[in-house]
Amino acid sequence: MNEPGSTEDFGTVRIVGTGLLGTSIGLALGGGMAKVVLSDPSPTALALARDVGAGSVDDGATSPDLVVVAVPPDVTSRVVYDQLNANPDVTVTDVASVKRGVLEQLEARGADLRRYVGGHPMAGRERSGPVASRADLFLGRPWVICPTPDSDPDRVAQVRRLATALGAAPVTMPPGEHDAAVALVSHVPQVAASLVAARLARASDPAVSLAGQGVRDVTRIAGSDPTLWAQILAANADPVRDVLRELRDDLDEVIEALAALGEEASGSHVWPAREAVGARGTLARLVAAGNDGRDRIPGKHGSAPTSYAVVTALLPDEPGQLARLFHDIGEAGINVEEFSLEHAPGMPVGLAEVAVLPAVRGALEEALVTRGWHVV
Amino acid sequence: MNEPGSTEDFGTVRIVGTGLLGTSIGLALGGGMAKVVLSDPSPTALALARDVGAGSVDDGATSPDLVVVAVPPDVTSRVVYDQLNANPDVTVTDVASVKRGVLEQLEARGADLRRYVGGHPMAGRERSGPVASRADLFLGRPWVICPTPDSDPDRVAQVRRLATALGAAPVTMPPGEHDAAVALVSHVPQVAASLVAARLARASDPAVSLAGQGVRDVTRIAGSDPTLWAQILAANADPVRDVLRELRDDLDEVIEALAALGEEASGSHVWPAREAVGARGTLARLVAAGNDGRDRIPGKHGSAPTSYAVVTALLPDEPGQLARLFHDIGEAGINVEEFSLEHAPGMPVGLAEVAVLPAVRGALEEALVTRGWHVV
Repeated sequence: MNEPGSTEDFGTVRIVGTGLLGTSIGLALGGGMAKVVLSDPSPTALALARDVGAGSVDDGATSPDLVVVAVPPDVTSRVVYDQLNANPDVTVTDVASVKRGVLEQLEARGADLRRYVGGHPMAGRERSGPVASRADLFLGRPWVICPTPDSDPDRVAQVRRLATALGAAPVTMPPGEHDAAVALVSHVPQVAASLVAARLARASDPAVSLAGQGVRDVTRIAGSDPTLWAQILAANADPVRDVLRELRDDLDEVIEALAALGEEASGSHVWPAREAVGARGTLARLVAAGNDGRDRIPGKHGSAPTSYAVVTALLPDEPGQLARLFHDIGEAGINVEEFSLEHAPGMPVGLAEVAVLPAVRGALEEALVTRGWHVV
Repeated sequence: MNEPGSTEDFGTVRIVGTGLLGTSIGLALGGGMAKVVLSDPSPTALALARDVGAGSVDDGATSPDLVVVAVPPDVTSRVVYDQLNANPDVTVTDVASVKRGVLEQLEARGADLRRYVGGHPMAGRERSGPVASRADLFLGRPWVICPTPDSDPDRVAQVRRLATALGAAPVTMPPGEHDAAVALVSHVPQVAASLVAARLARASDPAVSLAGQGVRDVTRIAGSDPTLWAQILAANADPVRDVLRELRDDLDEVIEALAALGEEASGSHVWPAREAVGARGTLARLVAAGNDGRDRIPGKHGSAPTSYAVVTALLPDEPGQLARLFHDIGEAGINVEEFSLEHAPGMPVGLAEVAVLPAVRGALEEALVTRGWHVV
C-alpha cells in the first residue's frame, strides 16, 4: 500500500466544492501534504467540511499553488473556467466523472488549456456529502487523468503526483476515450441494472421470492441515486447512447428470435415441432458474445483475467461461522481470491462461495472436508 | 438444516436422465430413502451415474413407485408422456426449468394428468453432467412444484415430500406463474448480463482496465453456457419476450432522452444551455423505478428485504487476512449478513465490504478500528 504524503508538498491547495470527493481530498492532503483552503456555495457543506478537518475556509486572500474543482458535473466547466481566470499561472484540475463536455466548453470560452488537467478519481460510497468523506477514499482506486495536446507536461505530472499521493492508481487517457470507457464499464451497466430491476417493481410476491444470486448480482447497483445518475448520464449522453443503441440492436434480435420460437411452440402440440430456423442460433450467439466480453474483465490488481475455481460450503447462520471458515482456510495456507455469501429462502443455512486459483481447488476442498465443513 | 432421509421411504424410484440433476437426486435418495434405478440414452452418462453411486442400472423389469424425469427441457414432455403410459398408477414428476410448454404438450396428447406433478429445483453448478453431481445439491434451494387442477393431491404431497427430503424448500405455483416468474428473476437477467458483457468483447484494453465491481456484478452470470441457455430461453420464449419488450420500451425512452441531451450539449457552448425538456426526468424515473424493484428482492432466508449497513475495511492481500478479519468480527459477536471482496487494479490491497444490520454498524466499525483495521 502507498504510504500517503511522506515526501510530497503541494503548497497551498484550494478545493472548490466540499462534497464527498472534495472533502475527502482535503482530509487526505491535510495530513501534512498541503495547506488546504475550502470553498463551497453551501455554507453548511463548507462548515461541515471544515469541522471534519478537511481544511480552513478560503478567505479569498490566499493565493493557491493548485486548484481542485470538485463540483457537480453540470457546473464543472464554469467553475474551472473561473478558477483558471482568477489564478493566473496556477494548475486547475477537476474530478468530474465525464470529461469531454467540460473540455469542449472550456475550449469554446477560450480558457487557458495549458493549465487545465482533467481528472476522474473512480471512487465513491453509498453515502454522499462532506460527512461521508474519508481520507482513505481513493486508496487503490483508478484515478483517470485526461491531458489534452495543450496541457503543460509539468502540470500533468503535478496532477499525477496528487493522485498517487492520495493512494490512487493514476491512468492516463484522452478525454473522449475516457468518456467512451466509462459509458461502457459504468454508465451502461447502471442503465441495464435499472432496466432489469424496474421489471421487479410490479412483480408478484411469489415471483420475487424465487430471486437468487443471479438477479441479485445483476441489480445490485440499481439501488443508486436517481438525481445523481440523471446528471451523470446526461453529461455523457452521446457515448452512452451509442453503446445503448448497439445493445438495443442485439436485444431486438433476441426478441425477434423469441417471437419466432413462440410461434413454433404454438404449432408444436404434435411432434416433431415446426421449426423457427436460426432462432436458437441467435440466442446462443448472444450468450457466447457475453462469454467473450465477461472474460475480458480484468482480475484482481489489474492483472490479466483469471478463471477462479469456486468451492461452495454450507454455512450455519450463526455468528462466528465465517471466522471459523476463514480460519480453517488460512490454516491450510490458501489465499481467497473472491468470496460471496448467499442465503437460501426459508433455510437457516448459507452457501459460502470461495473462489481460489484452480491449482489449489483440491487442497481447499480437502482442507474444508477434513475440518468438518459440508462442501457442496 | 433438514436432516435428509431419516424417516422417508419412497420405495423404488426410477430416474430417467442421469445428468447433474438426475444423478444428484439419485445420490441423495440412495442414502437410505429409496431403491434407485437409473436410465439414460447415453451409456457413458448412465455408467458414470452408477459408478458415483446414484443407483443401479434399470433392467426394465423393475416396477417403480415414483418416476423422476430429469432430461433436457426440449424432450421432457415426450419422456414424461412415455413414462406415464409405461407405468400405470405411478406418479411422474420432472425437473425442467420451464413448465407450461411441458404441460400443454401432455394435454394435447391426452396424458393422464392426475399422475403428473411438474417440478423445478432451482439448483445448479458451473459444471454439468453426472460427475459434477452432489447429494447436497438441493440443500436450501427453492424447489417449485406446479400442480394443475387435474393433479391428484396425494401425488402433489408425494412430490413435495421428495423435495423436502432432499433438503430443498418446496414452493407451490401454477405452471404459467412459474414460467413468468423465472422469466423475470432468471431468464431476463441472464439476457441483460449477456447484452452488457457482449459490449465489452470488442472494447479497448484501457477501457476494460477501468472495470470495477459494478460491471463485474452485472455481468457475472454472462459466463453461462450458450447451448444450455439457448434451450432454456427457447422453452420459455413467450414470457421472456413479454418482459424483454417492456424492457425495450424503457430502453427506447432512455435512448431518446440521451439523444435530446446530446443535441442540447452540442448547442451549449454558450451558457445557459438549450434545454432538452423532460429528458433528465426520464433518466431519473428509470433509476428510481430500479430502486423500487431492487428493494423488493428478498433478504436472507426469504424474509422481508432489509437494508444492511455496509462497513468497508482495507485488506492486505495475504493468506490469513480474511480469517483475522472474521475472527475479529466474530469476537465482537456481530453476525455478517452479506460479504464481498473487491480488489483494486494495481494495488496489493483489497476492499472487504461487510454488510450488517444497521443497528450494529457502529459497534462493528469500533471493533474493527480497535483491532487495527483500516475502515474506509
